[in-house]
Amino acid sequence: MASSRADLPPLTSGTLLNKNSGRVKEARRLARRSFRAEQRQFLADGPKAVEGALGVPGCVVEVFATAAASEQYAALRAAAPAWTVVDDRALASLSDSVHPQGVVARCRFIDRPLDHVVEHSLSLVALCADVRDPGNAGTVIRTADAAGAGAVVLAGHSVDAYNAKTVRATVGSVFHLPLALEPDPATAVARLRAAGLTVLAADGGGELDLDDAADDGLLAGPTAWLFGNEAWGLPAELAALADHRVRIPIHGAAESLNLSTAAAVCHYASARAQRRTGAAGA
Amino acid sequence: MASSRADLPPLTSGTLLNKNSGRVKEARRLARRSFRAEQRQFLADGPKAVEGALGVPGCVVEVFATAAASEQYAALRAAAPAWTVVDDRALASLSDSVHPQGVVARCRFIDRPLDHVVEHSLSLVALCADVRDPGNAGTVIRTADAAGAGAVVLAGHSVDAYNAKTVRATVGSVFHLPLALEPDPATAVARLRAAGLTVLAADGGGELDLDDAADDGLLAGPTAWLFGNEAWGLPAELAALADHRVRIPIHGAAESLNLSTAAAVCHYASARAQRRTGAAGA
Repeated sequence: MASSRADLPPLTSGTLLNKNSGRVKEARRLARRSFRAEQRQFLADGPKAVEGALGVPGCVVEVFATAAASEQYAALRAAAPAWTVVDDRALASLSDSVHPQGVVARCRFIDRPLDHVVEHSLSLVALCADVRDPGNAGTVIRTADAAGAGAVVLAGHSVDAYNAKTVRATVGSVFHLPLALEPDPATAVARLRAAGLTVLAADGGGELDLDDAADDGLLAGPTAWLFGNEAWGLPAELAALADHRVRIPIHGAAESLNLSTAAAVCHYASARAQRRTGAAGA
Repeated sequence: MASSRADLPPLTSGTLLNKNSGRVKEARRLARRSFRAEQRQFLADGPKAVEGALGVPGCVVEVFATAAASEQYAALRAAAPAWTVVDDRALASLSDSVHPQGVVARCRFIDRPLDHVVEHSLSLVALCADVRDPGNAGTVIRTADAAGAGAVVLAGHSVDAYNAKTVRATVGSVFHLPLALEPDPATAVARLRAAGLTVLAADGGGELDLDDAADDGLLAGPTAWLFGNEAWGLPAELAALADHRVRIPIHGAAESLNLSTAAAVCHYASARAQRRTGAAGA
């Protein structure tokens, strides 16, 4: 970090932008979904998110940082196309975090058409239909990434992928794997099936037990997991379009798992089955 | 519901307690940890939590409910030792939820000494050391319950198990399985090992891969999973007391999973291994 810092031009002191500067005000408007959609830009908040964004060619327009964060995150600064030092209040106005971490990037939208995403060979995909909670959607993306998924699709009336809370909950993962937005969940299911993936609906009332599915080798091939809304689950007509409906076995007295923990269990069951032929064939 | 409602005495109209009634005020003080500790009582908020509490003999002291909830949850009313109708503002003052669901129970503490808990044969236990976030602790308890755990231990400086957010995040599970509170995590590890459980520390830097542990049969026997703080993980000296340190494999670019999703993956890996000898021996 020290050596890369030495290569950087010194931070211009006395030119800290404040809350009322035009650039900060315009970036702040990206907190609103309608403005994001119009600009096709969003904010990535915190060093992990900014690092992730800088890993996507052409994604970052400009990074806003406090003077302290500009020193602390010299490696990010070295990678950024533009780095603007702002005062603490200006930075806080760009962050929706209770404890802003000093650095926020203005980013271009990174989603790709679903047809482009499925052109690549995919072994594991997370497909969210009408997932509404930003934290849940973000955590699903994070666990999909951890489990080695090749893409994430947010479909239907799901929360905006570019919502600050969603981006933060992914802890950078939204930048690690291709993201597609598809208004119609049924279309997403059809496209993924046409691309050769088995679509498994995660459904508490599903006809298959997850462990049985693993034992029977059903998880060993390319798989897309379909997750529904956290409160009301998957509509029956959408679940019916999947190849199978799979339930996580509940061994105790709990009625269910929440969406993000269920997604973690499903993603990791697939990751294991795809890598362990012994387990899949047992 | 209709038949049990018919068996109940009619709700006394005109005697709704308001926010300022002594009983409501005293119950409201249970929002504070110090008062909970002094009274050894806490609040269970919402119908799932109240239903869970009513399933534990002697747990519920009194249920507060709005008139509407008293009609809606007639089965709970039939099971409650005392049912007090309060106005909406009084109920809201007892709930820390943004959308109170009309029913809150005043409950006696339900934790048991760890020595009593380990007297029973346990195949799966969740042990949290210094887990601080109420939602995380609650979700860990919920996934442990779903995976068929026989007990939960909150150790060290973990969040108060009786915190309203923790209780709510368990969605009733805190009432489904024995709960022990142990100030010293090392003591908890020693007690669980002495009771014949293999203690596995969930640790991103662990020497064993979770899938390897499953393949090698390590998860097939009685197991206690040890989880550390969400931000800084497990202290090395505590992790060293476990039989093994196990990492969840990260196949993608994510750095880690969050605590509650990691716990779900670990609990379900154990649940599967304990029930599927084929998978465990593969």
